Amino acid sequence: MDRVEALRELAFEKKSYDAFLVSNEKNLLYMTGTPGAFCMLIPRKGENIIFAYGVNYEQTKVEAKGFKVELLKAGEKLNEKFAPLLKTFKVKKLGLDTLSYDFYRLFAKNFRGKVRLKVDGSLMWELRRVKDERELELLRKAGVITSAGMQAAYETIRPGVTEIEVAAEIEYTMRKKGGWGTGFETIVASGIRSAYPHGGCANRKIVQGDLVVVDIGALYEHYHSDMTRTIVAGKPSEKQKRIYEAVKAAQEKAHQAIKAGAKAKNIDQAARKTIEEAGYGQYFVHGLGHGVGLEIHEQPSLAATSKDRLVVGNVVTNEPGIYLPDFGGVRIEDTVLVQEGKGEKFTKGPYTLEAEK
Amino acid sequence: MDRVEALRELAFEKKSYDAFLVSNEKNLLYMTGTPGAFCMLIPRKGENIIFAYGVNYEQTKVEAKGFKVELLKAGEKLNEKFAPLLKTFKVKKLGLDTLSYDFYRLFAKNFRGKVRLKVDGSLMWELRRVKDERELELLRKAGVITSAGMQAAYETIRPGVTEIEVAAEIEYTMRKKGGWGTGFETIVASGIRSAYPHGGCANRKIVQGDLVVVDIGALYEHYHSDMTRTIVAGKPSEKQKRIYEAVKAAQEKAHQAIKAGAKAKNIDQAARKTIEEAGYGQYFVHGLGHGVGLEIHEQPSLAATSKDRLVVGNVVTNEPGIYLPDFGGVRIEDTVLVQEGKGEKFTKGPYTLEAEK
Repeated sequence: MDRVEALRELAFEKKSYDAFLVSNEKNLLYMTGTPGAFCMLIPRKGENIIFAYGVNYEQTKVEAKGFKVELLKAGEKLNEKFAPLLKTFKVKKLGLDTLSYDFYRLFAKNFRGKVRLKVDGSLMWELRRVKDERELELLRKAGVITSAGMQAAYETIRPGVTEIEVAAEIEYTMRKKGGWGTGFETIVASGIRSAYPHGGCANRKIVQGDLVVVDIGALYEHYHSDMTRTIVAGKPSEKQKRIYEAVKAAQEKAHQAIKAGAKAKNIDQAARKTIEEAGYGQYFVHGLGHGVGLEIHEQPSLAATSKDRLVVGNVVTNEPGIYLPDFGGVRIEDTVLVQEGKGEKFTKGPYTLEAEK
Repeated sequence: MDRVEALRELAFEKKSYDAFLVSNEKNLLYMTGTPGAFCMLIPRKGENIIFAYGVNYEQTKVEAKGFKVELLKAGEKLNEKFAPLLKTFKVKKLGLDTLSYDFYRLFAKNFRGKVRLKVDGSLMWELRRVKDERELELLRKAGVITSAGMQAAYETIRPGVTEIEVAAEIEYTMRKKGGWGTGFETIVASGIRSAYPHGGCANRKIVQGDLVVVDIGALYEHYHSDMTRTIVAGKPSEKQKRIYEAVKAAQEKAHQAIKAGAKAKNIDQAARKTIEEAGYGQYFVHGLGHGVGLEIHEQPSLAATSKDRLVVGNVVTNEPGIYLPDFGGVRIEDTVLVQEGKGEKFTKGPYTLEAEK
């Protein structure tokens, strides 16, 4: 219930909502600890209520402690359930973590002139972007599992093996280490497809000299991890090594800069400048990183346009890359906990282009 | 380009939009064949345009054939790019597949009085809910891979094995058969958690006599499959068998009813009635099924509240279940192609409670 208390403080002390409605799936998981709630209403005065459809009702009742759980019947209109509630709770100003256009229209029709709606996504992020001890434990474990998966990639990649076969060994290893599956589609992108940051993973046989970008992440109890290494099948060429060294230097520079108080855009800049100086600036086609938690892409954002400033407890990726069309790409990525001093890497693995013999 | 032509016909012949904007990720994948487009504008008169951020720009240019691809720079405001375009294309009425509240506000601010917005999600579904030959090939293959995964479950489940260990063997088998990963989190829910339709999969050791609900689905080239079997670790009890037979009979009844022309709600009703007659009506806590394709939950919906009518080329799940709190649950599910006559099952596996010795 600490999280509900924290939300109450933000919504009712720092801001002046009369009630706050949470309906984003991950926000609900964060607040209730169980994945089946449909939405949650926190009134300034009155009982916290979760709404759940029949398919998840029993599970939600057992697992969401400290809430009243109300059953939504199939076809039942949520806004009709809401009207009397908002009246009971005397809600004039309702904060919402998210709002679809359809839901907005329903609300507007039913509550126009009675309830003021204010979509305020930042409020939940204020909580979620700073991880507590329990979350760090899960994220650390997800990192250990992911690192084992990457080790399997180093042991599997060689000419003649398909991308999917490499993925099979990675994912099997992560499961054997207790993983809850993959937090996103495993990327094993070889040859010229390694130049596509989202190159996927297909039935392609890896050939001698290919760059292979391996971007993976295990789930552990709903928490994500994110890690990339780039591996050459066989002996790396001089050009491949040159690109690799530039990315590695950029990642290291950024890692030095990841600490509480730093501006996120300056960390992106530290990596970007290193890659520019190596002459590959135009081929670093994405931001440096993103927060990681219940979602694979969270706040804070480590990008040139970011307005975020890091604080202790943020968990972020550091993933510079160079992508040369028709040649191939290199990316190196770790998931890192922001601390007062140097960040703690949750993912650990060799910084080398060479697969294990 | 057939799909673009089909969309043009719906948007400009059957309806009177001047342009149609697609921004749902799966709709974009369906239309462009590549996963990296940010949005796509189809004007009544003028060139079809895809917008892509730098991270996906090169891949989109190569893979999205027959479109002009425009680069979105980081921080660039899409609505500012749109204003001159909508003017050029003389757009007075813009159809959209989806619209977020934030985007609505941006649009409203920039185009109020100039462009009429109409969110029309059904238009893309009209196309996507009827699968073409190429899609059926991929869905069939996803079904074969998923069925192999289920076979692994039958071979692995026994007292003493953890849910995650079972998932490991299932997913490894699916990868070895060429799968692109899992389309949703693998469910291996044992003991009383089998009574939760979304019971997940954890580090729990399966014990003698447990009901184990195994709900899995392989991805194959972005297409999904969905299959459930319920397996007992050891010898099933009489009560377990009774529940199982009721679910099996309901699934079979529904399967007989799945054919072109049938009302979706009647198929749900066929299964529901069978379970009610067995005395478990109140424990079938969800709809009978859903469409399957680029998403795991699509149209049409097979539920009591559904207004859908099946047509040839729909692909749907048939998944009745009985969930007894504090006892356990049984669900049986297949993915089925709707035809004129009897549906074709894409997932194939034994209808038995007993694991392989």
